[in-house]
Amino acid sequence: MTAPSPQAIAYRAVFDGIAARASAAERLSIGALVRGEPGRRAQFTLEAAGLHLDLTRAQMTVDDLTALFELARAADVTAHRDAMMRGATVNATEGRPALHTALRRDPARPLVVDGTDLMREVDETLTRMRDFASRVRDGRWRGARGRLITDVVNIGIGGSQLGPLLACEALRDWAHPRVQVHFLSNIDPGCWDAIRAQLDPHATLVVVASKSWRTIETARNAEAVRRWLRSGGIDDAGLARHLVGVTANVAGARAFGLSDEAIFPFRDWVGGRFSLWSAIGLPVMLSIGPDGFDRMLAGARAMDEHFATAPIAQNAPIRLALHSVWNRLALGSNSEPVIPYCDALRRLPAFLQQLQMESNGKSTDVDGAPLPWQTMPIVWGEAGTDAQHSFFQALHQGTSRHPVEFVLAVPPRPDPEGRDRTLLANALAQAEGLMNGRGLAESRAELIAQGVAPDQADRIAPHRVHAGNRPSSVVLLGTLTPASFGALLALYEHKTAALGWLWRINSFDQWGVELGKQLAGPIEAALAAPGAPDGAMDPSTAALILRLRALLEARTDPGAPDAA
Amino acid sequence: MTAPSPQAIAYRAVFDGIAARASAAERLSIGALVRGEPGRRAQFTLEAAGLHLDLTRAQMTVDDLTALFELARAADVTAHRDAMMRGATVNATEGRPALHTALRRDPARPLVVDGTDLMREVDETLTRMRDFASRVRDGRWRGARGRLITDVVNIGIGGSQLGPLLACEALRDWAHPRVQVHFLSNIDPGCWDAIRAQLDPHATLVVVASKSWRTIETARNAEAVRRWLRSGGIDDAGLARHLVGVTANVAGARAFGLSDEAIFPFRDWVGGRFSLWSAIGLPVMLSIGPDGFDRMLAGARAMDEHFATAPIAQNAPIRLALHSVWNRLALGSNSEPVIPYCDALRRLPAFLQQLQMESNGKSTDVDGAPLPWQTMPIVWGEAGTDAQHSFFQALHQGTSRHPVEFVLAVPPRPDPEGRDRTLLANALAQAEGLMNGRGLAESRAELIAQGVAPDQADRIAPHRVHAGNRPSSVVLLGTLTPASFGALLALYEHKTAALGWLWRINSFDQWGVELGKQLAGPIEAALAAPGAPDGAMDPSTAALILRLRALLEARTDPGAPDAA
Repeated sequence: MTAPSPQAIAYRAVFDGIAARASAAERLSIGALVRGEPGRRAQFTLEAAGLHLDLTRAQMTVDDLTALFELARAADVTAHRDAMMRGATVNATEGRPALHTALRRDPARPLVVDGTDLMREVDETLTRMRDFASRVRDGRWRGARGRLITDVVNIGIGGSQLGPLLACEALRDWAHPRVQVHFLSNIDPGCWDAIRAQLDPHATLVVVASKSWRTIETARNAEAVRRWLRSGGIDDAGLARHLVGVTANVAGARAFGLSDEAIFPFRDWVGGRFSLWSAIGLPVMLSIGPDGFDRMLAGARAMDEHFATAPIAQNAPIRLALHSVWNRLALGSNSEPVIPYCDALRRLPAFLQQLQMESNGKSTDVDGAPLPWQTMPIVWGEAGTDAQHSFFQALHQGTSRHPVEFVLAVPPRPDPEGRDRTLLANALAQAEGLMNGRGLAESRAELIAQGVAPDQADRIAPHRVHAGNRPSSVVLLGTLTPASFGALLALYEHKTAALGWLWRINSFDQWGVELGKQLAGPIEAALAAPGAPDGAMDPSTAALILRLRALLEARTDPGAPDAA
Repeated sequence: MTAPSPQAIAYRAVFDGIAARASAAERLSIGALVRGEPGRRAQFTLEAAGLHLDLTRAQMTVDDLTALFELARAADVTAHRDAMMRGATVNATEGRPALHTALRRDPARPLVVDGTDLMREVDETLTRMRDFASRVRDGRWRGARGRLITDVVNIGIGGSQLGPLLACEALRDWAHPRVQVHFLSNIDPGCWDAIRAQLDPHATLVVVASKSWRTIETARNAEAVRRWLRSGGIDDAGLARHLVGVTANVAGARAFGLSDEAIFPFRDWVGGRFSLWSAIGLPVMLSIGPDGFDRMLAGARAMDEHFATAPIAQNAPIRLALHSVWNRLALGSNSEPVIPYCDALRRLPAFLQQLQMESNGKSTDVDGAPLPWQTMPIVWGEAGTDAQHSFFQALHQGTSRHPVEFVLAVPPRPDPEGRDRTLLANALAQAEGLMNGRGLAESRAELIAQGVAPDQADRIAPHRVHAGNRPSSVVLLGTLTPASFGALLALYEHKTAALGWLWRINSFDQWGVELGKQLAGPIEAALAAPGAPDGAMDPSTAALILRLRALLEARTDPGAPDAA
């Protein structure tokens, strides 16, 4: 591997200082800090683009935080930020900028990169998207036989699915009542079978979304769906009413048979996991309309402005990144659970999983040298309060400590059953319980107070002990709207980038997804061909190929739903 | 805390021996073992109730495995298993058995516990469920105005939701075409708002599912849904056609207003996360029918028989548990990703998360003494191939190693686009890539072969390196059917129990879910009442209460969808 650069070596000294502080943090009582540390509340709460962050329950002191600010300065986080937003080649291994912020920039403010104002192209695509979405929504755009469009199928995977799916679910209160969006991602034919059962081809619009136009899942699913449209009686001319594409590879989409009017392009400087704001957001705009989409962009833009201008100490994305650096060191924790207390944000953890793990789940620094520290932990979670009835047991009483991020949104309407307050109270109670825990004496006293016999109380009390001193944080949205949703996602996008700079990672490439794709080809061929698998394959792969091939051949069709 | 028992101390010595072996495992090359260790394939592949397990890619030798078998014997795993299945009080802190296996036992084989044959009651409830489900499905059971039932809403959370939801999704190919099942779990009022938009009260059957009948989410949601039924014009007599309950607290369900005919009971010896097989499975039976449900039970029963009779070395659930013990020690890994390569099993990770983390995410041994080892890691995952386009980057190139479990099902029908083979090939390719990795020289040579200039290849090659030597396992179902699905879930149930015995945990209680519930009450009251929060509350909680209260009060209703 490459040797660390002089810059990397100098930075490591600062980083090691943080690591030393963090390893001393275990003895800090979070509760005592929250109750007694002077100045803590001012230092550990933030406002950003309408969002409120409460980071008071971190296992660090104000002095530790000050040291983290030094780390951010040593990492040149603000210089990297500025470079990213002005279009420098921050994705060095792929030789391009990372300009998702341009997608939500005020189009009246030029952004000139290599002599070209990118905003003209961004605005042109947005204008075409608005026009198209309006026509589908108001019924001017119809199927080949004149039917209104009732269903949209977005064919895309990874970044071409997770963002749009999350946005459509999160903003379902703003959805067009006639237009339902479905997401076809998995290569498993059962994924399309389940969606297709609900659809009429003549009322269905298909959006094929692939940055490279080479993604095998999307290519094969697009073929299957086009076959279904044709078998429904839609001829080649009619397909133009039912099929559009979103891609950075316009030539590829043309080769698939799409006309230029049916192609919504974006540029290769938009990373897949940062692409919701581009034409990849088309299904979202079809659902919530151009105005809703604009408000989502405006919310993200407000967070961009905060990120671009707030000093480090008040900069919400940078602060979240610094806390992640700290937690990775202080807790020895390999996980960052995110719990949205908001049913509509149920898929936020899946989105953040890709955003953060694909960006920063790496072992090599920007220069190609091995990284001397642990990088991105697992991002995971489910909606609260559901999760309380699932894995919260382990968060409270398990042997590992995880920094839990509570994402709170206030339900938009007063609820006759009071469920709005119960929802929020539960989030706060979990955070309090994680911090305060419950000791043995308290546990025993509670049992006695409940009338449990003393010997029984002695026996049960240890099982009710919660060690406590478990950190958490709160991100509070106000109500969930297109704007607050946009701000929330931009917050995590910028946290991800900042964390990359703090860890000296290029967050914008993803070389780790290539190897598996390469290896799949020969295995797929071996599954299809008779005879022994290639002798170079390891015995486990070879044995599984033979077994799977036998199972594939032995299938008795249980009644194909798609005989075409 | 309680001091460790003599038994615990003796066992710990054996466990420490395993820990010593595991810490030496890092230098083992998984690829070399797979290719060269004599007898490995025979020792590391298993058949169980129609499932095939390939554990060859574990980072352990055959000798290590033999030592693990000694651990299983020292833990008396088979004696615990026998005690569980015959109805001994294995859940000592709650003073009851854990008899989910009775729910799928042949009813002709009595199971006498404390002088009573439990099978009569089990069979009686199953018979009532079958009768009711048949009538709803064939249209003999109708709404109060004579409408056919088109939609079922299951109101339940945690164990009353995760299993039935997974089963309904997994077995969607067997679903009744008219009867759609919805799951209402979250206390967030938005959860019901989103479901309700699709429903007509006169064609809707509501199943209220709560073991204790005291779960606040389910109670409040049941009130909201009953209000909606009434506001749709259904009177108290008519409600009997639209509302049934599933509970172990029959008195509670009666107090809610249900007649005995509308109550499907189960016993407190069924743990929530093990309850799919009980009356909690009613929505599943409504969807896939009594025959499908019976086949699901039969699949689980086949796994029960395997678990009850197979020797440790061939016992699939025990083997999975032993591998978890090992991985926790050898990899220092705090996670067990599960990746179903089967779209219909998309929610399997969420189910396994509750099953395993709620059961074994504990720090206290069966006797109340602190555990001397790390227990349940995070269980998480998403469906493949989707996950390859999300977090697989981090699994391949991140700084931590995770034992990836691939759950494979063969798509039931040949696919014209070949997606069936591509799906399976991708799973095998990921496992191969995790094991073999890709070295620097290979990475550079590939780039040169692609025509990349040498200096550019030097620069990029380190970023394409995969360290490899990352363990994984395969659970192969054949095709997904009610029977194979039942066997799969029973496999993980028994793995969970076995892991509890190996870690000396009571897997059947969940004291860690109580504290948060207790703390929520006063916070909810403070959110509703004016004035300063209780001075005993910590400053973070108090500040958040004030902020949330202001947000709750400032809401301008954006148009309530449920004005009733």
